[in-house]
Amino acid sequence: MTNLRRMKVTNSHADRGAEDTAAVLLTLTLDRSTGATLNRQLYMLIRELILSGRLVGGARLPSTRQLALDLRVSRTVTLTAYDQLVAEGYIEPRRGSGQYVCDFDVRTANRPTFTETYPSPTSLHPGPTARGKPFDPTVPAWTLFPTHVWSRLIARSWRREGSDAIGIDHWGGLPSLRAAVAGHLRAMQGLDCSAEQVIITGGNDDALQLIVRGLDLVSEAAWVEDPGHVGARRTLGNLGVAFCGIPVDVEGIDVDAGRRIAPNARMALVTPSRQFPLGMPMSLSRRLALIDWARTSGAVIIEDDYDSEIRFSGRPMASLSGLDADGAVVAIGSFSKLTFPGLRLGYGVGPPHIIARLIVERARQGVPVASSAQPALAAFMAEGGFSKHLGVLRRTIAHRRAVLIDALSTCLGSRVVILPQEVGMHLTVLLNGTEKAPGTDVQVATLAGECGLSVEPLSKNSIGADRRQGFLLGYAAWEDDDLVQAVQTLATLMDAVDIGTLR
Amino acid sequence: MTNLRRMKVTNSHADRGAEDTAAVLLTLTLDRSTGATLNRQLYMLIRELILSGRLVGGARLPSTRQLALDLRVSRTVTLTAYDQLVAEGYIEPRRGSGQYVCDFDVRTANRPTFTETYPSPTSLHPGPTARGKPFDPTVPAWTLFPTHVWSRLIARSWRREGSDAIGIDHWGGLPSLRAAVAGHLRAMQGLDCSAEQVIITGGNDDALQLIVRGLDLVSEAAWVEDPGHVGARRTLGNLGVAFCGIPVDVEGIDVDAGRRIAPNARMALVTPSRQFPLGMPMSLSRRLALIDWARTSGAVIIEDDYDSEIRFSGRPMASLSGLDADGAVVAIGSFSKLTFPGLRLGYGVGPPHIIARLIVERARQGVPVASSAQPALAAFMAEGGFSKHLGVLRRTIAHRRAVLIDALSTCLGSRVVILPQEVGMHLTVLLNGTEKAPGTDVQVATLAGECGLSVEPLSKNSIGADRRQGFLLGYAAWEDDDLVQAVQTLATLMDAVDIGTLR
Repeated sequence: MTNLRRMKVTNSHADRGAEDTAAVLLTLTLDRSTGATLNRQLYMLIRELILSGRLVGGARLPSTRQLALDLRVSRTVTLTAYDQLVAEGYIEPRRGSGQYVCDFDVRTANRPTFTETYPSPTSLHPGPTARGKPFDPTVPAWTLFPTHVWSRLIARSWRREGSDAIGIDHWGGLPSLRAAVAGHLRAMQGLDCSAEQVIITGGNDDALQLIVRGLDLVSEAAWVEDPGHVGARRTLGNLGVAFCGIPVDVEGIDVDAGRRIAPNARMALVTPSRQFPLGMPMSLSRRLALIDWARTSGAVIIEDDYDSEIRFSGRPMASLSGLDADGAVVAIGSFSKLTFPGLRLGYGVGPPHIIARLIVERARQGVPVASSAQPALAAFMAEGGFSKHLGVLRRTIAHRRAVLIDALSTCLGSRVVILPQEVGMHLTVLLNGTEKAPGTDVQVATLAGECGLSVEPLSKNSIGADRRQGFLLGYAAWEDDDLVQAVQTLATLMDAVDIGTLR
Repeated sequence: MTNLRRMKVTNSHADRGAEDTAAVLLTLTLDRSTGATLNRQLYMLIRELILSGRLVGGARLPSTRQLALDLRVSRTVTLTAYDQLVAEGYIEPRRGSGQYVCDFDVRTANRPTFTETYPSPTSLHPGPTARGKPFDPTVPAWTLFPTHVWSRLIARSWRREGSDAIGIDHWGGLPSLRAAVAGHLRAMQGLDCSAEQVIITGGNDDALQLIVRGLDLVSEAAWVEDPGHVGARRTLGNLGVAFCGIPVDVEGIDVDAGRRIAPNARMALVTPSRQFPLGMPMSLSRRLALIDWARTSGAVIIEDDYDSEIRFSGRPMASLSGLDADGAVVAIGSFSKLTFPGLRLGYGVGPPHIIARLIVERARQGVPVASSAQPALAAFMAEGGFSKHLGVLRRTIAHRRAVLIDALSTCLGSRVVILPQEVGMHLTVLLNGTEKAPGTDVQVATLAGECGLSVEPLSKNSIGADRRQGFLLGYAAWEDDDLVQAVQTLATLMDAVDIGTLR
């Protein structure tokens, strides 16, 4: 191992793909004398081989049985390690049998990509007007952002409130912004909340980490939706949270299944407005069942109603926060996707005693949220600029969504099923006829990546039994022509993959 | 445990301190069926009891021998768990024998505190001009920051470069800022570096996390200095890094001891300009020995020359980055302490292949560094505003340092030894006559906290055998009179504690 590790730090390994996978894995040494469990060690070692490029995308892993024999460990060890790698999106099952290393480009395509390639040391100046690859669900419609209004607010806020942002001693965020966010949530979600129930965060991921640490949920069990957001699972895994995938059905997360699968969980992370990635809202009875479980088991619910400001039809259901105001629900959200990616401001809203604990945790960590844009965002909200911008976003995004649906019907017809969806910035479509061809969506997504598209395969978000395939197609950031052309490219690729022959 | 946990989420426990410590610990249940090691479980459970307030500051823990008997585990389990709790600052040895729970206020006093109390839900509007408690080493001299210049730059940058900060697709940071930081490092530290060797971060802690994740150092062993920064140890511990305290002597970290204690370490975190907390620079021969170790073992060196821009005398030694330009040294730094706390911008600088990996890791995580202030900071540096401000900081801070040294000599005389220190924003003083009275510095610091001071006890930063006591006294943020008065208060407190009677 030492040699392997040494090389990794000093060399690039992108070109080391030809080695035999099984031989590489046989070099692994598990250390029975350390405190780390064998399955954790195995998971870490294989992950390292993948990230360092020793195991390249598409490499087939030995079966759990074979690897257990080779390494002289129990099969539980290899099964657990593989499960964790699948859940975090490092490896994936393909056609029939066996586990394969995910293509690194495909995996990073799950993350926001605002340029065609990551900046390399020799490309420090990618075009500032890059919109990202079509269909990347994480790219917001930032070109619609009213820069002129914002520039004026930033300038004014620094003249008037500069000392406030400079001498910030507000671990919960600037008071004016906390008040403005509370007003926004009251108006948008009918949430009966005050400024003291709001904490300003650096975004959704920051809020999630703060909650896990602040409420002592590290090393605890947690419910996550299955399928659900692979990025959120990675964040929880990095924090040491033992997340358990709980199946979702048409009503949302299956609370009864959760009680069976992980009765001791102390946290549930859910997307009730529009389930990620399947799109349906959580039913009211399921919301109440979830709250009932949380109340009786003393668990915390984290409600991530991402993108719910962008609604096309229907009315929002009562949020979990609203249904259980004195309970333990924390709703989190980000403004970066509704403004521009570099804003990095979001919020958590919940009962005062929980928000107070989060503020204490922030102070304990000693790193405040960046303050430079906080006064401007407060003014943007308080003076109506934000809600006006949301109106522009909604109209434009609704139009783009219609264009995308139209193009999908024309070009792909019965080959896809568009899942219903009333809010958000992406469509989820299922691929027909792929039941017996696992990995088709990943395969098409890989090809799409080579053709300048960023298509997220649906199956990446599954942990357990749900092997439905499809795509997540973001549409917020592109003009009509770009969307139509991208759909045509996608159709051509699907012809090339020829789903029929895979059955 | 379930009841205990349920209560913690829904109630405040501040008033639950009267329970008998041993009885509380007897309620602990270690679960032998899970993957987690028993010592890890015990560490987590005791930490939870402390953070939730079930075990309050000053509570005496049972001996490792007794607890091992009570819980029917080996003594290694209890020893390892206690060691970890001591290393992370949750418990501490006191007078003679036994381990005590640290006072929570004392522990949080190690973190930046810009107000006298953390904002509570009922105090949303603490004064924006608060300077923090005297002696808090983390409070910068932000009142000296030229707000008027900065406001103009922010306004101008948003007019001219707004679209650049808005459509940011620069995972390594805004190119103009990367270039400006490279220029700053060339000028200040004589470092031969270009923009491609710089990555912009959200600060020091963010840089440390990015390096650990980006270079796959999670779950690896690492050298940290002992004594060394307890906050950095907590960050590493949270990431899953197995940090090992390596003793420092007058020349800095003892590389030979490191080779013995943790030969397989893949990382060393060091403070060569001015060792934290003891103040001496690392000798050149020690620097070369460290680099030699890193080269032969394939380890990464993280060079944290915090505050080194504030130098009073002497000349900076060749930095590790400069000595080993094509090796694996990453220097990290923050601008927040040299400007204002809410800036949240810092950097990592290192060989291009390492910086490229960090940029890929940032893109993989999908969360860019906040962009709003990046163009303004680039202009502030490029146009000379920053170096002018550094001159003001240096002069003012040098003056305040002289005032503090003078006051210490007058009021405390031979009771303290001021350690030599040529850079930075705090003094470290040793307490004479405390060899046989462990915990004296913690005791004085606790009293000081009640009197409106924020004194960091030196012993908090020790992991192992070094039990020297003293204080870290920050002086950057306070006027002469405030510093003198604070020293007088400290002297009074030391009289009250009456060190003589503790021998």
